[in-house]
Amino acid sequence: MSIPVVDSTADAELSARLEAAVNNKTKPLGSLGMLETLARQVGLVQRTVQPRIVAPAILVFAGDHGVVAEKVSPYPQDVTWQMVENFLGGGAAINVFARQNACALRVVDAGVNHDFGVRAGLLDRKVAHGTRNFMREAAMTREQCLLAIRYGVELVDSLEGNVLGFGEMGIGNTSAAAALMRKLTGAPLEDCVGAGAGLSEEGVAHKLAVLRRAVELHAQASEPLDILAALGGFEIAMMAGAMLAAARRRMVLLIDGFIVTSALLVAARLRPAVLDYCVFSHCSDERGHTGMLAHLGARPLLQLGLRLGEGSGCALALPLLHAAVNFLNDMATFESAQVSGKDG
Amino acid sequence: MSIPVVDSTADAELSARLEAAVNNKTKPLGSLGMLETLARQVGLVQRTVQPRIVAPAILVFAGDHGVVAEKVSPYPQDVTWQMVENFLGGGAAINVFARQNACALRVVDAGVNHDFGVRAGLLDRKVAHGTRNFMREAAMTREQCLLAIRYGVELVDSLEGNVLGFGEMGIGNTSAAAALMRKLTGAPLEDCVGAGAGLSEEGVAHKLAVLRRAVELHAQASEPLDILAALGGFEIAMMAGAMLAAARRRMVLLIDGFIVTSALLVAARLRPAVLDYCVFSHCSDERGHTGMLAHLGARPLLQLGLRLGEGSGCALALPLLHAAVNFLNDMATFESAQVSGKDG
Repeated sequence: MSIPVVDSTADAELSARLEAAVNNKTKPLGSLGMLETLARQVGLVQRTVQPRIVAPAILVFAGDHGVVAEKVSPYPQDVTWQMVENFLGGGAAINVFARQNACALRVVDAGVNHDFGVRAGLLDRKVAHGTRNFMREAAMTREQCLLAIRYGVELVDSLEGNVLGFGEMGIGNTSAAAALMRKLTGAPLEDCVGAGAGLSEEGVAHKLAVLRRAVELHAQASEPLDILAALGGFEIAMMAGAMLAAARRRMVLLIDGFIVTSALLVAARLRPAVLDYCVFSHCSDERGHTGMLAHLGARPLLQLGLRLGEGSGCALALPLLHAAVNFLNDMATFESAQVSGKDG
Repeated sequence: MSIPVVDSTADAELSARLEAAVNNKTKPLGSLGMLETLARQVGLVQRTVQPRIVAPAILVFAGDHGVVAEKVSPYPQDVTWQMVENFLGGGAAINVFARQNACALRVVDAGVNHDFGVRAGLLDRKVAHGTRNFMREAAMTREQCLLAIRYGVELVDSLEGNVLGFGEMGIGNTSAAAALMRKLTGAPLEDCVGAGAGLSEEGVAHKLAVLRRAVELHAQASEPLDILAALGGFEIAMMAGAMLAAARRRMVLLIDGFIVTSALLVAARLRPAVLDYCVFSHCSDERGHTGMLAHLGARPLLQLGLRLGEGSGCALALPLLHAAVNFLNDMATFESAQVSGKDG
């Protein structure tokens, strides 16, 4: 399979027109802060000074992780499929926030260690019943990794709408994300490893020790796809594929927390221009996320101390994306409202 | 007139029930961060573990300031009434954001230096055609100050709904707010004075010099109402009254930026319990706002580099308030969703 090609959104002429449109609105220059940056970004993505948000959706990718055998999570692996059931039943945080903000929600079984059968609302793209334990061997084969990416690409090609949020569920996946961060950003491992769903200090120390050995075991992996196969997860690989496909389609990508951003680290290594399409919904409380965002030069919209995953940050940030587009389209200009400008 | 009495929302028994309700939801403990704090706060305000948001509204209070004669703003005073017209016409940022988030909006003429006549959508509570120049004399008489507060109290008593956001418009009102901050928090004046709607560095230095003389002139004012009358504005005094009345009615108060928070400094000095009812929507880019929030021990929801006023931060933060209430009401519990808890 071929990795989608992603073009930069850079366009000096359009950028100047967007800036003029923003600055003509009845408000002090720059007074809408990050919403102004966001409005210009969405305009560049959609190649217009009148961007529109159409049918925003969040895909939640679920997958299991062999490394849970090393006791890196305080929750049993069963919680992955149980939470998928919770998503399908409408009772999880992401269901509540997506409903509130009129955002479609689809759940993808990327590789959960459970047989759901055919279920309404669940997209079956299961690569396998969980990855292998990357403390002992590569989490996935290269074929599995490429299949996950291909599934992600194809999922996006079948979507409508022009805004796509990314969410995930998978007990153990902060371990995979931390290992990817270490390998793809070069940050010291202790800056990549956090409490995940709620480890004690002792638990974090153990997780750090496990990951130190895993990273050593896979020291030879240096290309992004090798690193992804060795230390990633099915849901992470599928998200990376979906991100590239969404950017190729010039959708706005809503990036959630630590695990989603680890998928973006892979995607951005393959196609750096994908970052032009990314809106960083929030900064998670999971230890490594601040460092990941800094590595990507990203400024997140929200800082609410969230560390839930599921795409919850995307759903919560969506109203700000609407606000950016709405002020650009609907605010009066100094001229149309006959408001005086600055003196002199 | 008498200042409304405000009760604390403290209730240890209810607080424990709210904490249990939050912690039973299908999510890692504490993983919704500030939304969890917010959900508990709203529950305490409404005295229930199932709070509801009913008919949220924003009041935008407009007033003019005599101190503009000292050239403390880069915009002419006419912009105050012109922006009121823009609010009435639906073309300002606050109109766009309030519409988007299904928030009612009312505009109050607290003391604009302009005759609007009778206008649909405009509440005429004009105390006078702008305050006097506080560089030379008190901005208002004590009678004017008390009248503004009373108007604010009465306005709230006629409202429906249980969430009230506060916004303002008034060329020169960052000068009044900075002077109030200096007097009510004790912060050095240079930490209180910023660029407002867009002063140059030179302009800020001039504004600082003007305010230094004004604060000196009114050095004898030490009681909150004396300080408010000497250095405040009609829209600020009216907001202070409205805040106390709203808290007395156990509404949730959405606090906007620098000027709105200066009104709260006054209200909180009169009735400290008003703070129990306040949700701080954002931290403004106006220089003094961070210090004001710190003085009040407030943690704002958004940090988007806004410095627009009008209540725009309140409208933008409203979806987060909904999210806090919605997760508390609508998320499944570990038991109802049959999701396993932590191991051991």
